[in-house]
Amino acid sequence: MMLFGGSFVSVMASEAELRLPSLREVHFPALGGVSGYALMLLGIAVCAIGALFGLVQYLQTKALPVHEAMRNVSNLIWETCKSYLIQQGKFLALLWALIGICIIYYFGSLRHMPAGSVLVILLSSVLGILGSYGVAWFGMRINTQANSRSAFAALKGLPWPPLAIPMRSGMSVGLLLISVELFFMICILVFLPPELTGPCFIGFAIGESLGASALRICGGIFTKIADIGSDLMKIVFKLPEDDPKNPGVIADCTGDNAGDSVGPTADGFETYGVTGVALIAFLALTLGSEGLTGAICAKLITWLFVMRIMMIVTSLVAYGLNQAIFGAKYGTARDFHPEKPLTWLVWLTSAISIVLTFVVSKLMLGDFQDVHGQPQPDLWWVLSVIISCGTAAGALIPEFTKIFTSTNAKHTQEIVTASRQGGASLNILSGFVAGNFSAFWQGLLMLTLMLVAALMAGHQALQSIMPEGIGFAAPIFAFGLVAFGFLGMGPVTIAVDSFGPVSDNAQSVYELSQIESVPNVEQDIQSKFGFKPDFKAAKHNLEKNDGAGNTFKATAKPVLIGTAVVGATTMIFGIILLLDKEFGDVISKLSLVQPEIVLGFLMGGAVIYWFTGASTQAVVTGAYRAVVYIKENLDLSAKAASMEDSKEVVRICTVYAQRGMINIFIAIFCMSLALAFFNAYFFIGYLISIAFFGLFQAVFMANAGGAWDNAKKIVEVDLRQKGTELHAATVVGDTVGDPFKDTSSVSMNPIIKFTTLFGLLAVEIAVAMQKAGKVGLKTGIAVVLLIIALAFVYRSFYAMRIPEEK
Amino acid sequence: MMLFGGSFVSVMASEAELRLPSLREVHFPALGGVSGYALMLLGIAVCAIGALFGLVQYLQTKALPVHEAMRNVSNLIWETCKSYLIQQGKFLALLWALIGICIIYYFGSLRHMPAGSVLVILLSSVLGILGSYGVAWFGMRINTQANSRSAFAALKGLPWPPLAIPMRSGMSVGLLLISVELFFMICILVFLPPELTGPCFIGFAIGESLGASALRICGGIFTKIADIGSDLMKIVFKLPEDDPKNPGVIADCTGDNAGDSVGPTADGFETYGVTGVALIAFLALTLGSEGLTGAICAKLITWLFVMRIMMIVTSLVAYGLNQAIFGAKYGTARDFHPEKPLTWLVWLTSAISIVLTFVVSKLMLGDFQDVHGQPQPDLWWVLSVIISCGTAAGALIPEFTKIFTSTNAKHTQEIVTASRQGGASLNILSGFVAGNFSAFWQGLLMLTLMLVAALMAGHQALQSIMPEGIGFAAPIFAFGLVAFGFLGMGPVTIAVDSFGPVSDNAQSVYELSQIESVPNVEQDIQSKFGFKPDFKAAKHNLEKNDGAGNTFKATAKPVLIGTAVVGATTMIFGIILLLDKEFGDVISKLSLVQPEIVLGFLMGGAVIYWFTGASTQAVVTGAYRAVVYIKENLDLSAKAASMEDSKEVVRICTVYAQRGMINIFIAIFCMSLALAFFNAYFFIGYLISIAFFGLFQAVFMANAGGAWDNAKKIVEVDLRQKGTELHAATVVGDTVGDPFKDTSSVSMNPIIKFTTLFGLLAVEIAVAMQKAGKVGLKTGIAVVLLIIALAFVYRSFYAMRIPEEK
Repeated sequence: MMLFGGSFVSVMASEAELRLPSLREVHFPALGGVSGYALMLLGIAVCAIGALFGLVQYLQTKALPVHEAMRNVSNLIWETCKSYLIQQGKFLALLWALIGICIIYYFGSLRHMPAGSVLVILLSSVLGILGSYGVAWFGMRINTQANSRSAFAALKGLPWPPLAIPMRSGMSVGLLLISVELFFMICILVFLPPELTGPCFIGFAIGESLGASALRICGGIFTKIADIGSDLMKIVFKLPEDDPKNPGVIADCTGDNAGDSVGPTADGFETYGVTGVALIAFLALTLGSEGLTGAICAKLITWLFVMRIMMIVTSLVAYGLNQAIFGAKYGTARDFHPEKPLTWLVWLTSAISIVLTFVVSKLMLGDFQDVHGQPQPDLWWVLSVIISCGTAAGALIPEFTKIFTSTNAKHTQEIVTASRQGGASLNILSGFVAGNFSAFWQGLLMLTLMLVAALMAGHQALQSIMPEGIGFAAPIFAFGLVAFGFLGMGPVTIAVDSFGPVSDNAQSVYELSQIESVPNVEQDIQSKFGFKPDFKAAKHNLEKNDGAGNTFKATAKPVLIGTAVVGATTMIFGIILLLDKEFGDVISKLSLVQPEIVLGFLMGGAVIYWFTGASTQAVVTGAYRAVVYIKENLDLSAKAASMEDSKEVVRICTVYAQRGMINIFIAIFCMSLALAFFNAYFFIGYLISIAFFGLFQAVFMANAGGAWDNAKKIVEVDLRQKGTELHAATVVGDTVGDPFKDTSSVSMNPIIKFTTLFGLLAVEIAVAMQKAGKVGLKTGIAVVLLIIALAFVYRSFYAMRIPEEK
Repeated sequence: MMLFGGSFVSVMASEAELRLPSLREVHFPALGGVSGYALMLLGIAVCAIGALFGLVQYLQTKALPVHEAMRNVSNLIWETCKSYLIQQGKFLALLWALIGICIIYYFGSLRHMPAGSVLVILLSSVLGILGSYGVAWFGMRINTQANSRSAFAALKGLPWPPLAIPMRSGMSVGLLLISVELFFMICILVFLPPELTGPCFIGFAIGESLGASALRICGGIFTKIADIGSDLMKIVFKLPEDDPKNPGVIADCTGDNAGDSVGPTADGFETYGVTGVALIAFLALTLGSEGLTGAICAKLITWLFVMRIMMIVTSLVAYGLNQAIFGAKYGTARDFHPEKPLTWLVWLTSAISIVLTFVVSKLMLGDFQDVHGQPQPDLWWVLSVIISCGTAAGALIPEFTKIFTSTNAKHTQEIVTASRQGGASLNILSGFVAGNFSAFWQGLLMLTLMLVAALMAGHQALQSIMPEGIGFAAPIFAFGLVAFGFLGMGPVTIAVDSFGPVSDNAQSVYELSQIESVPNVEQDIQSKFGFKPDFKAAKHNLEKNDGAGNTFKATAKPVLIGTAVVGATTMIFGIILLLDKEFGDVISKLSLVQPEIVLGFLMGGAVIYWFTGASTQAVVTGAYRAVVYIKENLDLSAKAASMEDSKEVVRICTVYAQRGMINIFIAIFCMSLALAFFNAYFFIGYLISIAFFGLFQAVFMANAGGAWDNAKKIVEVDLRQKGTELHAATVVGDTVGDPFKDTSSVSMNPIIKFTTLFGLLAVEIAVAMQKAGKVGLKTGIAVVLLIIALAFVYRSFYAMRIPEEK
């Protein structure tokens, strides 16, 4: 049966629109003949359990004992966080309007959909943004409870209690996030009319990635302005970490949440959704919603969702097991390496997840038949191997990251050695080397896993479900599955990432509460909480937890960015198919010998470098203002900084973060629309290019930053050389690494995903305008938008310069 | 006439081998009916004149008056340079053996060519290396004469004489280089039997780029070890620039030549040759050597060579004019901006070159007829416009570079501002921003010029000479012509680049000669040379010239790297054609939807980041050793460092440069061969990827380095704040920028070209082995080579770490 002619989409996807098959008709004999639909309803129940778990953990965390002095500090942090988030919310509404206009214009004006349908699609995009925003809010709330509880628990003198609290809050965030995301997706899938499911998924995913991009960029700039601002005081005035006299410390704590808590949660939410949507869209576009292929499509989509549902269960089980094991082992131990329980959690979840992937796939797809009615008894394990490449990546990438960034890594030690005689100069160069080498080895790791997936995609079982004539569809699907697998233990990946800001904050809360100098504190704690506080052990354990937090914050970054590049071709598959349908011959038009593609690559590379520069510039100019303000207002004789001064630093951070974000976001948005309107093939070259350039730039920056950070930690903790020249040199490296690891690199993932998803809509609009004879208007809009984009690129440096001093 | 079927090479290029048409049968009526052959003989005469000019300039420079103290210093520098170059020569012989084996195996064993022919091809590759090596040698020789003459001429107190000398030596190098290169190429073209011309061109180009790569990498590492080593003493001991007490200064002077003189000359030689060979190969492969298309091919090849010959004349005329104008204007002036005559030289040459391009093209191609005998009266100007895009780039890219790196650039000033309150931290981040923004804008500039070329390629006149059925051939040709045009004023581009090391050296020679404290020096000079020395003005003018040299060194870098990316598709055209001939359907196999291509991109990005890291690591570890040695042996009470100490620093530089280079080169070499052997499509993805990643990485690094360097100059010269904290912060930026701008970035161009050219040979070998049924052997070799490559990648950090201190 020859399904395809020269243009391979002639059979299915008879319209450009994405139409999903019904899950009611697909049944799974090995699961007692249950239908896909019923499994989805079950999934909703699991989501409810997951979300409930998250909420219960929240309430439990809130109810944990804490001294008033510490609670006050964490409340103060929460207040500043809240006003930051509210401001961000207004901003997101504004950005959403831009997307909203495009959605209304396309679906309403060009596709002539009824107003009700357009409204539903609009609502999906709002749901996407609100999802990103909501989980960010939840994460911030629980983290600002957990920070003081962890700090207080440390007073008991044992390392386990202050470690278990941020682990629990992390799991709470991770589970809630994944449950909410999955809940929304299942609802769109099963409760919306079939003609709306596809567009709503796209709208939802665009919304998610818009929210995540904005929160990542803004939070990333905010946190590093505050961080550099207060860190530089360590060199200038030889102040210790988190000195209450330093008015930058509150802003730093807020920043830890705005950047390291809000960022990853929104990003994780978005990544989880987008990789799913990309795969669903791929299947629906390739196999269609009708007939035999439609049934296969329904079966595979159900399988994908069950994999995700399973993940919630896996994470819960693994977390429970891990807590039981380490709680028993370390609950009363006086010393152990805090990274150990976290590493174990990752590996345990990974192992259970891989095993369950095979078991569940066997149950669901063991009896799989292709369109010819031929049994394909190998499909289940082929797909399981491919997904497991991704799941393995989720555990291997962190290990590779440690080779370059952990405190006992050769690279990190080399940075310290180089700083001894070469000062800040060789410190910077040596960290730069670590970042570059890490980009090579982690790039190679991803390449290897993708290669395995591509080779598996050649297996006849997988080829048999792909329409004939498009040999490349199977590897694209396989890459999408690998990206999907990257988050195969999503809740845990988010949990270990969320550990960082809490443990970091806990240390700050301890210092800011000045608990040791509270009158009669020892008796007070003894009488109210029933134990005698051990201040020295508390500080030591909190510092160690902070180090572990650094490491795990670093390890999650390459995982998230990895999904963008591994899933890139799957994500743009919708555009490719659309172009083939409209103009034919898409494969050769995407060939490297075509000038459009070559020029698209150049454009993509240029934009990634600009983005790196622009986000860093916002940090530089903001940090400069913060440093000047702090230097002028720091009172060395006071016990603590005044509230006004602290709030002013928060204000500076907010202003520059927002300014930087506006320039960047408008440029990115206009650029996407303009390039898609100019030429769709050029635009695809651009999309692939930003994914690849983004990957390497992000990995390089994240790991260089991590290495510099931990080189400083070696000098501070292992060598105990605070205040020396060596320490000053490593502080320089750390501050340079700040925007590397927490601003530019981490924003690449949502930016790439947003551009790609929004690009699908943009290309659809462009094609529809072309068909409607509006070529002049299309080109006109493209030119205007390109000029606007370039103006904002220009502004992102020239309007963001450090103001002249009077 | 349908020339092509599904596989577009069925007609021409009936063999994979490259066969060039005879130039004897092609005539140019508007030039009096002269034949292409005769024009080539005329070209040889022009080359002789160019080379003669270079030699005469050399002799005149050598004969210029110079004080003995200064001559001794420059002789010392020359001695160390010589031993460096001799050592490099041995090394090149070793590397050549690797290439030689491949050539012998392919042409001798697989293609069964007679031993004599193989020998000629081998000799061409030797000629290529010797060419790169020879011009490097010549450049070093004249520069080490010009440095002391310029320093001495400065004593007259006027700015023009010390400026005119390095300009003259630069022109001498530029003209000799281009003349020699063109002479070799014409000889290969007209004097070798037709079946050997193609392979000899390839062999020659591989040799050139091998030589250039090795000299660039090694020189780049050497110079920056020495530079950082002596610069850091400015912070540690507050020593002034070029203090004779500092044993690192001689090594620094040697390094200026090994890096900034040898590097660009070898690189320019290679670039000039490779872009030419790529175009010739493109034409011969597309149009063939026989029949009507062969005649068109001969005409276009002749035209290309005449363009190059013309360039020598243009540069000579422009230089003569420029010297006359500025000599008259500034000859006795007491103050003017030294960049002005250099900028004028560039723009003047560019303008004359563009005008002559149109005139000569009109004369040669005005009566052009396509294969159907149809006149194509537009072809001459279409081609002229395309080449002029490149020539314009040669003048525009330097201007764009200045926006980010010159001392009055907003970016450079921002670096200084940021350093005021943010110290080394914000200094580094701000320079990092400058580099990133420059990558965006310069990338966009190249994109725009390539877009113009691609649009012109759509003109019917150009399409008419391309075989039907390959619409993409015209833009590929156009890109090649743009790259060709980048060096449209080759001698001048090299001349302004070579200005830098001489002006830099001149300043050092002045200090090292301690001329001011030579007994009775004033009377001595008055009596021997007839003028009274003005020491203050001399130092001031030499410092200003050094600044101008920095700027122009910076501007040439993006031009050279630009040729690699703009010409990338043209350079790989031979591989593409070969694959199409053997396996068909090449266009769609190079599509972005193919996993091979996607994985190839990943590989390319990874290798560029590794290369950046590895070359920097060699500098870090070497600089560390140098710093330790200098710190231990610097005698602050002495008048000058001992000769033994100075030589020891030179030795340290040489050792680490060679170690670094060996690791890098073997990894690159084995990687190319391994990847080509694994899968040719994957390899093409890799080649395109290294070109694009290399471009952005190189431009970013070169300009960031330039900006840091000149930020320091602002503090030293404009603000006169040497020895302050602000100065220390900018010195950190400068030293970080050292390997950025002079090691990693500048090596990318020859590395990319070498990989691409050698890749053609590698793919040919792989295909021949496959046809000979040696698939197992091929894969086996690939695996072994990949393991070796990865081992050397590993070694490039782990075997290059800073040794533990006792």
